Amino acid sequence: MPRIKFLPHEKEIAVEGGTTLIRAAMAAGVHINASCGGEGVCGKCRVLIEEGEVEGGITEKLSREDIDKGYRLACRSKVKTDLVVRIPVESAVDAGVLNRMATPRKTARIKEINLDEFKEKGLFIPPVEKKYLELPEPVVADNVPDVTRIVRSLRHDHKEHRLEFDMSVIRKIPDVLRASDFKVTVNIARPVREEGKNRIINIEPGDTTARNFAIAVDIGTTTVYGQMIDLITGKVLAQHGDFNSQISYGEDVISRIMFAEKPGGLDTLNKKVLETINAVIEKIVKESGVDTDEVSTITLAGNTTMTQLFLKVNPRYIRRSPYVPAASLYPPVKAPDIGLNLPDHVTALVYPQVSSYVGGDIVAGVMGSGMAHDKRLTLYMDIGTNAEIVIGNKDWLVCAACSAGPAFEGGGIKLGMRAAKGAIEDFSINPVTLEPMNITIGNARPKGICGSGLITMVATLFETGVIDSRGKYNRDLNTPRIREVDGVWEYVLAWEDVTAIDRDVVLTEIDIDNLIRAKGAIYSGCMTLLKEVGLSIQDLDRIILAGGFGNSVDLEKCMIIGLFPELDPDKVTFIGNGSLLGARMSCLTNRIRKDVGDVLSRMTNFELSETSSYMDNYIAALFLPHTDLNLFPKLKSRLDARRSSEK
Amino acid sequence: MPRIKFLPHEKEIAVEGGTTLIRAAMAAGVHINASCGGEGVCGKCRVLIEEGEVEGGITEKLSREDIDKGYRLACRSKVKTDLVVRIPVESAVDAGVLNRMATPRKTARIKEINLDEFKEKGLFIPPVEKKYLELPEPVVADNVPDVTRIVRSLRHDHKEHRLEFDMSVIRKIPDVLRASDFKVTVNIARPVREEGKNRIINIEPGDTTARNFAIAVDIGTTTVYGQMIDLITGKVLAQHGDFNSQISYGEDVISRIMFAEKPGGLDTLNKKVLETINAVIEKIVKESGVDTDEVSTITLAGNTTMTQLFLKVNPRYIRRSPYVPAASLYPPVKAPDIGLNLPDHVTALVYPQVSSYVGGDIVAGVMGSGMAHDKRLTLYMDIGTNAEIVIGNKDWLVCAACSAGPAFEGGGIKLGMRAAKGAIEDFSINPVTLEPMNITIGNARPKGICGSGLITMVATLFETGVIDSRGKYNRDLNTPRIREVDGVWEYVLAWEDVTAIDRDVVLTEIDIDNLIRAKGAIYSGCMTLLKEVGLSIQDLDRIILAGGFGNSVDLEKCMIIGLFPELDPDKVTFIGNGSLLGARMSCLTNRIRKDVGDVLSRMTNFELSETSSYMDNYIAALFLPHTDLNLFPKLKSRLDARRSSEK
Repeated sequence: MPRIKFLPHEKEIAVEGGTTLIRAAMAAGVHINASCGGEGVCGKCRVLIEEGEVEGGITEKLSREDIDKGYRLACRSKVKTDLVVRIPVESAVDAGVLNRMATPRKTARIKEINLDEFKEKGLFIPPVEKKYLELPEPVVADNVPDVTRIVRSLRHDHKEHRLEFDMSVIRKIPDVLRASDFKVTVNIARPVREEGKNRIINIEPGDTTARNFAIAVDIGTTTVYGQMIDLITGKVLAQHGDFNSQISYGEDVISRIMFAEKPGGLDTLNKKVLETINAVIEKIVKESGVDTDEVSTITLAGNTTMTQLFLKVNPRYIRRSPYVPAASLYPPVKAPDIGLNLPDHVTALVYPQVSSYVGGDIVAGVMGSGMAHDKRLTLYMDIGTNAEIVIGNKDWLVCAACSAGPAFEGGGIKLGMRAAKGAIEDFSINPVTLEPMNITIGNARPKGICGSGLITMVATLFETGVIDSRGKYNRDLNTPRIREVDGVWEYVLAWEDVTAIDRDVVLTEIDIDNLIRAKGAIYSGCMTLLKEVGLSIQDLDRIILAGGFGNSVDLEKCMIIGLFPELDPDKVTFIGNGSLLGARMSCLTNRIRKDVGDVLSRMTNFELSETSSYMDNYIAALFLPHTDLNLFPKLKSRLDARRSSEK
Repeated sequence: MPRIKFLPHEKEIAVEGGTTLIRAAMAAGVHINASCGGEGVCGKCRVLIEEGEVEGGITEKLSREDIDKGYRLACRSKVKTDLVVRIPVESAVDAGVLNRMATPRKTARIKEINLDEFKEKGLFIPPVEKKYLELPEPVVADNVPDVTRIVRSLRHDHKEHRLEFDMSVIRKIPDVLRASDFKVTVNIARPVREEGKNRIINIEPGDTTARNFAIAVDIGTTTVYGQMIDLITGKVLAQHGDFNSQISYGEDVISRIMFAEKPGGLDTLNKKVLETINAVIEKIVKESGVDTDEVSTITLAGNTTMTQLFLKVNPRYIRRSPYVPAASLYPPVKAPDIGLNLPDHVTALVYPQVSSYVGGDIVAGVMGSGMAHDKRLTLYMDIGTNAEIVIGNKDWLVCAACSAGPAFEGGGIKLGMRAAKGAIEDFSINPVTLEPMNITIGNARPKGICGSGLITMVATLFETGVIDSRGKYNRDLNTPRIREVDGVWEYVLAWEDVTAIDRDVVLTEIDIDNLIRAKGAIYSGCMTLLKEVGLSIQDLDRIILAGGFGNSVDLEKCMIIGLFPELDPDKVTFIGNGSLLGARMSCLTNRIRKDVGDVLSRMTNFELSETSSYMDNYIAALFLPHTDLNLFPKLKSRLDARRSSEK
């Protein structure tokens, strides 16, 4: 990877070829003025290429003379070779200031299943296995029923016992046997417990043991993801995601439940989510070249409301105090019986729920991440509109849902938006000039602010002293970017002339307040859970982040605003879609289905609204990072250093 | 009961008031000339009432003078008081002849379940039980899922464990709980084995523990019978039978299978039998005043072909060598999933099959009769078009099907008919005059001969020497009733002028030959099975008769023709519809479902056509009663006595 040295900061970083210089600078913690998000419109991100070569970066924003000298726009220059890049510092900025600039980005380590290790440990136990049988043809002296003939061979030749046959299989057996000269493959669904039955769910002519597939599905409130898994290799052959078409009936679970309470509402929502799931299945079936008849099993995970809507179980009592879901565990069901476009032999497994707001998606994440079998004390967080928190280890687990509000998804923020093209996703500020560096998704003109951008902005503004610990702008700073409009103070991230909308993109104090409330709710949830089990933040060994949120968020920034407790970023693991991971793991190992009941019984749910300490913790957390700065010792020492250097 | 003394025979019998004198005479073994079946048309059954009083019996066939003297027609006279009745003997008949006349009828003892005894033995274990629960209403501090709340109460208050819930129940639970103030009744389906799960299959508001019902169904080739069983008392509340509407597609299983092989044939036959079963269910539901929602379980039994047609399993390989059925055991299935008009919570249990021709009806009979748990060596016979034989005791069982042909149901007999109005069902002959006494079903003019009549005729004709052991008429007898028509010898049972048809009702030598072949096949089956296990006829402790056949048949007559081995008639038990009995017993005790697999594995099936001794046994049995008369010692001594008296 090419190495880039930024001057005068003397900071170095290695990035992949093709990375834009502005992203490389951001990653190195080097500030470059840039408000237009990376589309080359504002022309402020001029940098001088002193050594090496870049591709592009020349626009009409640069004079002939500048170009000849080696100036380029950082946002349009792509790294080709090792580089030495000088950032022109228009105002006098001393070394101290430079060093107080943004620290290098730290995103969470991504955790992937190591399939080989998994197999070596004997954990690769797919819920459905295939056996190829060559049966003797019946004669009058040996005319046992066809099913008995199969059972005999399975017992004697394959040591398979406790067998039972689905009716749909029995119906196929006589003709399949005779069409294939009594050479057949049977699919055996393994029992969860040893004393359970081995269920024969399908029979196919000839030897089909090389082809055996499973589907994993995450049913999210917003999106539905599916994966096609090869049960021979364990690999994911195809993945597809789409918006849950229930979205037209409400953005969040509460509005979905309200719609489900209307006459015919439950049926409509059930039909809608099935449409989406079936379309996702169709897509991954096609993409992977698998025939639906070769699919042996499907596991689905979703939050409690999504699960009940998917299974057509009235969710009305979920949203009303005392918030009671219908069930925790759901029985395995035939896939077509619940409306899935899959053959009759496919059994659908649905992840169980802990409570109305800690659902199957979280249980799936806990199972899929291995947290429930690990001795390290882990904080598991899945942050979306609701944030679910699980704390514990292999011996105990506590969990709770915090109503964080939609700030992390851009909701309740004046110019908030989902992580889509034009959303400012990364940000730094020149602490002297207070000029911003905005990086947008797709290097497009800014349209708004997404969750990760919001966190980075608030953290950066706080650490550079632009806002105080209550999230209020320093009224004394001398910049037109900080202003009061209709009684609300705001910072102008991008002036109208470089935005994709017909006005300035701003960050208001109300936005900051919403973020503080959201992070306060989550942090308070962690504190409350820890306190209930007699532990403190310091006892945590690691954090597992699940959900789209963890994908691009800067961990240090999250710790600066007090969203996460302060922990070595190396101890933070990102597992992506925990719900989908858990669903996939359940396809790869029967152990999960065996253990999930036990894990579930160990998961103690707290209704935070009913836990007396929660509100106290919440109020204490409504500061940046917290009323008690001692909980964030590293940040405290940085802030102390800055204050003393400013004196 | 009034007592009747017949003179000059000096035979006495007690009968119920209202019995006709002719039936009383038959039962006493007294012959009265009577050819018209009991409609008073032939006027031959004149008897003199010497003491006591009868009702009716006066027709224009009697002169004023005879009436005044006290003569009545026996077929129209109903017993009112004790009687002394003299039979006018038109020809000189000595006492010896009188004593050689028909012996009193012996029908099999009817076996009924003694419910109290059954309960005392702890055998009354219905497959579904109900429990009434009064649950605490949820509050925020106790807001476990609804299903968990129910599980908690079942565990703590009722010591119920290993619980699982059907999806259909989970869907009902939230609303049912809240509509009934959390006072509900749950239906628990008991596992067959101890380690199995207790499955919650339904939930109802309030306390419904007093109402819990099951349905038992026998799916016969000709008829379908259903019973509604009260699972609290064990009693049968309603029973209904109807013709299997598959009948229009063939009389026997072979023609049904042939139809099923045509395109759409299986679907048609499946639909037809379901129509019949659902109509029978509707009828017993209505008659018993039970709501279908209160039905908890259904058990069905049928022969292998009926079972496969009912479950829509292609039966084509049943009728082709090597005669392979699809399966022995079928899994429990949701009743609506196989087309039964019953609620989703009802599980249908189907009796397993031994082989293509020893089906679930026989297994049901073996289980229902208790034979498989009895130490006595038992011969179980179910005689219809096919006769199925099971021999064994609690330690071992062997079985076989004999293709007896339809003679016992009146098939292949010139004037054979089913047991319907006008069928001669009982018969005796005056050994001197060779005049018949016919009794028809419904005391109507004779139309034909049914199975029980046929057996009685052949036995009587043989014992009185009218036919020989090969079934041939004695050509030397001097009576117009024995004649040769188109080269075939026959006996005229009723002349055209007293029949309901426009010709004589006769019994031909071909008819007799068909009966001999039929009984020979069955007897040979018994002999072959016994020989295969190293036993002989003398080792049998008892006979259990199942099927409509056993209902009215005269056991002594069956032993005379050599259909059954010679055994004390008290050792013969009639259980009626064994298939329905087994289905009913399965509703009353879970033990049957638990044991049936073991019993099945103990039932060794013999394909008689493949058993070398079968044909030898068959040829030896093509005599009355058998080539080896020593197998029938009581008959032998009677025949010897008759021959010596005739000398």
